[in-house]
Amino acid sequence: MKNFLLQNENAIYYECGYSCDNCIYLSLGSERFFITDARYEIDAGNHLKKGCELFVTNDLVAKCRKILQKSNIKKINFDPNDFSLSSYLNLTKKLNIKFIKTPNFSKLKRIIKSDDEIKLIKKAMTLGRSGFEKFQDYLQNDAQGKSEKYLAYMAQTFLSNYGKYDLSFEAIIAINENAAKPHAVPTSKKYDRKDLLLFDGGIKYKRYCSDRTVTFGNDLSVVSNTQRTQKFKNKKQQKVYDIVLKAQETTIKTARVGMKASQIDKIGRDIITKAGYGKYFVHSTGHGVGLDIHEYPNISSKSDFIIEENMVYTIEPGIYLQGEFGVRIEDTVVMRSKKAEIL
Amino acid sequence: MKNFLLQNENAIYYECGYSCDNCIYLSLGSERFFITDARYEIDAGNHLKKGCELFVTNDLVAKCRKILQKSNIKKINFDPNDFSLSSYLNLTKKLNIKFIKTPNFSKLKRIIKSDDEIKLIKKAMTLGRSGFEKFQDYLQNDAQGKSEKYLAYMAQTFLSNYGKYDLSFEAIIAINENAAKPHAVPTSKKYDRKDLLLFDGGIKYKRYCSDRTVTFGNDLSVVSNTQRTQKFKNKKQQKVYDIVLKAQETTIKTARVGMKASQIDKIGRDIITKAGYGKYFVHSTGHGVGLDIHEYPNISSKSDFIIEENMVYTIEPGIYLQGEFGVRIEDTVVMRSKKAEIL
Repeated sequence: MKNFLLQNENAIYYECGYSCDNCIYLSLGSERFFITDARYEIDAGNHLKKGCELFVTNDLVAKCRKILQKSNIKKINFDPNDFSLSSYLNLTKKLNIKFIKTPNFSKLKRIIKSDDEIKLIKKAMTLGRSGFEKFQDYLQNDAQGKSEKYLAYMAQTFLSNYGKYDLSFEAIIAINENAAKPHAVPTSKKYDRKDLLLFDGGIKYKRYCSDRTVTFGNDLSVVSNTQRTQKFKNKKQQKVYDIVLKAQETTIKTARVGMKASQIDKIGRDIITKAGYGKYFVHSTGHGVGLDIHEYPNISSKSDFIIEENMVYTIEPGIYLQGEFGVRIEDTVVMRSKKAEIL
Repeated sequence: MKNFLLQNENAIYYECGYSCDNCIYLSLGSERFFITDARYEIDAGNHLKKGCELFVTNDLVAKCRKILQKSNIKKINFDPNDFSLSSYLNLTKKLNIKFIKTPNFSKLKRIIKSDDEIKLIKKAMTLGRSGFEKFQDYLQNDAQGKSEKYLAYMAQTFLSNYGKYDLSFEAIIAINENAAKPHAVPTSKKYDRKDLLLFDGGIKYKRYCSDRTVTFGNDLSVVSNTQRTQKFKNKKQQKVYDIVLKAQETTIKTARVGMKASQIDKIGRDIITKAGYGKYFVHSTGHGVGLDIHEYPNISSKSDFIIEENMVYTIEPGIYLQGEFGVRIEDTVVMRSKKAEIL
């Protein structure tokens, strides 16, 4: 695809090595154009890949229209998810060019990661795990009586290494019944060492995301970054945890290049279903990770993607028992030598 | 306007007292509909205003189309800024209803705040100022040699009161020449007590935003939450600071109900221009604040809004000297008894 138009920050960064919160990128034949405003002129000049022409203007859309009008192109691809109706109408008004709706073409382009990208995600995962380790230590020694909100603040403190790294997303900290909500928002509920606590979070390293979830039990000394065993005083929690862990580890062990994503989803789902908790695994097994925290391939029962070498995605089965508790265990993996390897 | 459709979280919250990151709101004649997915069923049930019917579904757009099809309406208003081209096309496909593009109608509706809303913004401002005060103390005693990134982390720690409150936006911490960028992003640049430091930040209280900027000088003992004087060792910084302060304070003192927003913008701009720095005041004087951090009225040279009682907006003139330093001083005010009162 030679002619396309991008507005999405990460999609643009992928093309030309720079982006900011107000820019448009155009690829027209062999030419590349980056349009932004004066605030970003210096940074853009320093970071844009060679061969990409920089335009600085107050009216990005007008400039983009001018470039399009001057060009001889008849049609151009764009992603209808990335444009508001307003900006689409402003951009295309009375232009004699066919705008071809091509949903998610940038994400599809980014589905297989380069070795350099994988290094960055691995680094993000390593830094992220170090945050989890510090949080675990905190949980063991200083967290008694602290609220989910405060613990989320501490989790983000450790993840970001005191603001050094951006977060992939706002970390989830959820205790007991709150962990039964897959997208829990931290509350003022207070932590006790006999509680189950779910922590889902990640950081960005040079714009690439990490993603990981740990569900902490009660014996916080047993966890490490390489083994996932947890000890719960509550027998039902222990049982459910062990089922989810088996589902997660088996999925990682069994996933192979050449499988359909839906087959990978089925591995852990079958284990959870056999154990009688199938209807409590309410989401898909995982999602791609890269510049965006949610990329392709999605690992769901309906996903037809064929898994290939150098794809990066999460494996995160869970069981959610409303009013009781929830368990999710998540790692981000890369397909290497045909198998899934935890990053 | 009786028939309208909303997707924006804050716009929906304003209508029905609840919203989440996956919902659609419909107002059709005297009927109100809130559509969301199962994750939010309990919360929505607990918080939705009376008379608003709740629908829980996996396919929000399909449900919305069904409701629209069943109704007898011929046309419905929506904001083309709030819908991506994709979601607009999915929603409207083959429906025999005219969708009327009504840009920003929710923000226009929210331009005059109720007394209850003003109380919430005042509370957010009070909590926010307390964060600034703690940060000032930190700056005076513990900040030597710390990076902008780390100081931004500390600023957010104090603003959010260790995670208790959400932030209105990611706080800006910028030292010397970095403060010359109105939207600076914190870097690894290290702080020294002889530096100028700009801190722009705010928090949300019950979803309502606060917004404030302090440019700190070198004698950190002189600042307080009620007076804005700063002492700089650098004479040019002192001169520029005093000009911006005069512009800001004069704007607050002179603003009146009945003025055009552009007249309010002109008050401080004239002072800065007379002092010879007009071309370095590169943005507008302010913006409305409410559920969104940027609302109406915008206080710019081109804004025709007539200022009315109970409008809430920022007054934040600035001077930005590229490669040297920048100064911005910001408060959020409400129009009360025809005058601007700092919240």
